[in-house]
Amino acid sequence: MKIFLAQQNYHIGNFAENTKKIIEAIEAAKKQGGDIIIFSELCVCGYPPRDFLEFDDFINKCYAAIDEIKQHADTIAVIVGAPDKNIIPKGKDLFNGAFFLYDKRIKKVAHKTCLPTYDVFDENRYFEPAYEWDVIEFKGKKIALTICEDIWNLGDNPLYRICPMDELMKQHPDIMINISASPFDYTHDEDRKAVVKATVEKYKLPMFYCNSTGSQTEIVFDGSSLVYDKAGNLCGRLPAFKEALEAFVLKDDGTIAGPIVEVAGRVADKEWNLLQLEENLNTDKIYAAIVMSIKDYFFKMGFTKAIIGSSGGIDSAVTIALACEALGEVNVKAVLMPSQYSTGHSVDDAEKLSLTLGNPYEIIPIKNIYDAFLKELEPLFKGLSFSVAEENIQSRSRGNLLMAIANKFGYILLNTSNKSELATGYGTLYGDMAGGLGVLGDCYKLQVYALAKYINRNSEIIPENIISKAPSAELRPEQKDSDSLPEYDILDKILYQYIERRLGPKEIKAQGFDAALVDRILRMVNLNEYKRNQFCPVIRISPKAFGVGRRVPIVGKYLS
Amino acid sequence: MKIFLAQQNYHIGNFAENTKKIIEAIEAAKKQGGDIIIFSELCVCGYPPRDFLEFDDFINKCYAAIDEIKQHADTIAVIVGAPDKNIIPKGKDLFNGAFFLYDKRIKKVAHKTCLPTYDVFDENRYFEPAYEWDVIEFKGKKIALTICEDIWNLGDNPLYRICPMDELMKQHPDIMINISASPFDYTHDEDRKAVVKATVEKYKLPMFYCNSTGSQTEIVFDGSSLVYDKAGNLCGRLPAFKEALEAFVLKDDGTIAGPIVEVAGRVADKEWNLLQLEENLNTDKIYAAIVMSIKDYFFKMGFTKAIIGSSGGIDSAVTIALACEALGEVNVKAVLMPSQYSTGHSVDDAEKLSLTLGNPYEIIPIKNIYDAFLKELEPLFKGLSFSVAEENIQSRSRGNLLMAIANKFGYILLNTSNKSELATGYGTLYGDMAGGLGVLGDCYKLQVYALAKYINRNSEIIPENIISKAPSAELRPEQKDSDSLPEYDILDKILYQYIERRLGPKEIKAQGFDAALVDRILRMVNLNEYKRNQFCPVIRISPKAFGVGRRVPIVGKYLS
Repeated sequence: MKIFLAQQNYHIGNFAENTKKIIEAIEAAKKQGGDIIIFSELCVCGYPPRDFLEFDDFINKCYAAIDEIKQHADTIAVIVGAPDKNIIPKGKDLFNGAFFLYDKRIKKVAHKTCLPTYDVFDENRYFEPAYEWDVIEFKGKKIALTICEDIWNLGDNPLYRICPMDELMKQHPDIMINISASPFDYTHDEDRKAVVKATVEKYKLPMFYCNSTGSQTEIVFDGSSLVYDKAGNLCGRLPAFKEALEAFVLKDDGTIAGPIVEVAGRVADKEWNLLQLEENLNTDKIYAAIVMSIKDYFFKMGFTKAIIGSSGGIDSAVTIALACEALGEVNVKAVLMPSQYSTGHSVDDAEKLSLTLGNPYEIIPIKNIYDAFLKELEPLFKGLSFSVAEENIQSRSRGNLLMAIANKFGYILLNTSNKSELATGYGTLYGDMAGGLGVLGDCYKLQVYALAKYINRNSEIIPENIISKAPSAELRPEQKDSDSLPEYDILDKILYQYIERRLGPKEIKAQGFDAALVDRILRMVNLNEYKRNQFCPVIRISPKAFGVGRRVPIVGKYLS
Repeated sequence: MKIFLAQQNYHIGNFAENTKKIIEAIEAAKKQGGDIIIFSELCVCGYPPRDFLEFDDFINKCYAAIDEIKQHADTIAVIVGAPDKNIIPKGKDLFNGAFFLYDKRIKKVAHKTCLPTYDVFDENRYFEPAYEWDVIEFKGKKIALTICEDIWNLGDNPLYRICPMDELMKQHPDIMINISASPFDYTHDEDRKAVVKATVEKYKLPMFYCNSTGSQTEIVFDGSSLVYDKAGNLCGRLPAFKEALEAFVLKDDGTIAGPIVEVAGRVADKEWNLLQLEENLNTDKIYAAIVMSIKDYFFKMGFTKAIIGSSGGIDSAVTIALACEALGEVNVKAVLMPSQYSTGHSVDDAEKLSLTLGNPYEIIPIKNIYDAFLKELEPLFKGLSFSVAEENIQSRSRGNLLMAIANKFGYILLNTSNKSELATGYGTLYGDMAGGLGVLGDCYKLQVYALAKYINRNSEIIPENIISKAPSAELRPEQKDSDSLPEYDILDKILYQYIERRLGPKEIKAQGFDAALVDRILRMVNLNEYKRNQFCPVIRISPKAFGVGRRVPIVGKYLS
């Protein structure tokens, strides 16, 4: 039996494009004599469709796409993901479905049982869990068809009461197929492989696991689809961060033949997350994820050109390098906006970066604009000393300039804030926090340094001085980040314990960090929720990013 | 049996204050010989605690609060809401619990069964539904204790598979008690009364229904707690938008004695939502909800003073009037920032408003700042015609001025954008979209006019000219909103069908609206998701507000 995995990148709600892409893969697989072709979860509409699922019009368009696709499922069986109406008069109105199409008909729809509703997932918001479980008989084989989380309910403390594979095993299936939309983070690839393998070992059946790829606003899907034989041998692996269509032949002796793409990146140390954040953990994958996400954001939104404020600091340097890789250097405009508090090396370093990368840049000093603000505010501010107000005027003047150029020429402003700054509120709303996409918003400062080193792995792209100098916002004379913040190698570790691991103050202090410092940092994080609430989407590369996956009250008083 | 309802306003995560408030009410009820005192859902931590629930530290603090409260539950039974750990090794780690405290012990914890996971609710993200249902025997009565949504699972197409009251009826209860955190919207009060009454009529038991009050960031809780006797007579009603502690005596003959607070506001026409948005529907309640929300936002955040950009238009006028009512006029600073495109009457009207209200105001012209921006941009913009770039520079210069004054003196910027603007993207990110709280962000333009008329119900507070003149952003000569947008009485109706009712283009066009106009408006709504994503929380007064309750992909292509 020849089984194709179609690992594709979908555009949410773009039924015309998604359908076309699916049909092209079906036709290609048919030409190569495929018996079955497997796509990913909710592929007809793209994952996650979020509240579009609440529109009947949207659901009807999903069914229309299925109708069109099934005309091509004549000599090949096609498995696609789409929402399916719940006709039982109890529970939510939809199921998350895996449609098995053959003979130009919907032969069966399997419904998802385990509906992830945590972090970035909201599936229980839309879907009812499956009521029943049936294998699908096809060419003499019984197929156990499940959807993503359905195979994750393992272990001693399972998240869901029902384990759908246990139900399906009652009907003695021969093959497992799982269609997924399983997002990337810097350890998830390992977790996913472990879960798929554990499922194969538990049920002693071959597994064809098809994941989607591509970025959907903040959520990154890496693909990395997997095939295992029933003995638990890895027989196939599709590439990460790329579309792919590959055939796998399941032979009568149970072996499976097909391609295995070698995966770059360091394998995560099992103990790593029990100790501390390691700055260089899977930096190559993080780099690839961010580049794909910038590319996808622009392509899917119909944009081509980015604009970035270039301060001569490490965050903007890394962002500009990533944007040049994603969009091509001619499409990345850097704008240097020195003030009277900028140091000479900042402009030099920023110019050197763009000269090396070859991207266009402008220099627009903000002194006159800043002075114009101060002049108008003089009657009000008279006699008061320089404060964060004056700092923020500079930052917001830069934001205004960048947005004006963006508005005039059709650039999209990329934001350069890192996760350490966003966590502590070390940034100016409407100033350096402006932008359409937070390129580094899920990377702690230490990870930004690791990215800089990775970018420079073959040659010096980011000037060494940018990497080695002490970080500064340069909004007042002689300013350093360390005036307001702890050193990043302490700060990031405490933030990681609180944000990713969700440890409380007691547990973090027990790790040996200074108690007053822990309290101060946690307080900064919680007090600045209001700022993050107005921040753009950030490219998610960790298991806990700011944005849709982290929902914290603004008007609260907890550790704050 | 003497039963107290304690309708209180909690601060999320502020265990010290919440516990104190709860204990004070217990002691007051004890002095009056109460048998039972009922608080609201998750009262010990405040509702909704959102991802704070993922911190063990937070859960431990909830248990510590329960420990403290139960010491006061000696001669009186106390019902409080708090998360409860799930010790069964399956499912999520927490239940949403109603703790029945008596004799200084936790006598029983009832768990919530129906976990709302739609609109602003995310309960399935945190909680496992109840596994079992037991009545609580107390002083010869069997109490069926449920939590909020547990009694909403009625009708022919229930949202949940299990109806907890049906389970509890197997044990023949005598009394129903429901603890809620049921938010306000301009029709919800009616819906809630209908559901509570229908529950009483179905089970033929008296109902003591205790809701919370107060605003939690964007979500408004009106209170309006209810008591019904088993015959379905309304025997008690607590006020809206206020704390209250009231006793109700359940007599042996089944009658109940206690206060009924008269409710202002027009009863919603049953047909209203089948036809169109009515601009003056429950405007008095909307007014009260917004005033309470501003007050709560400031009080709970520890702020006292607001700053508002005063343009001479209706949105800022209504916002200023609402802020003065909530915070006192001395605490509301209006800033008039005319440009060369502002009309003379704008400044006059804005001044007249503040003179009438008695709130302080400043005039800061933006011409010189705007010119400074244009001068620096001249090399880039040379030869290009005036566009949205120049319009936005003005708006963002105002945002920068307002934030500078806010930063200098500790004001909080209140945002004045209305729902029609937010829906269509008719606003400038980081400009007039700046601010900490969106006062009118859930009010369509027609509702803003209704609020203005309501504010002027006794005397002219908002100058008549502000209400009667054509709306304009005044960012270019002779500009009118109607240059870019359809007339509001058409626009708002189409938006309402799409946003609140989630109708698709076909259904909206079938109502008689111009087809091209419908397509254009829906496209504007979907294209501008990226702007709303960076907007501050809006005070929710409708069944579908922008913000946490409406989650739409940014990088999508649906109707856009």
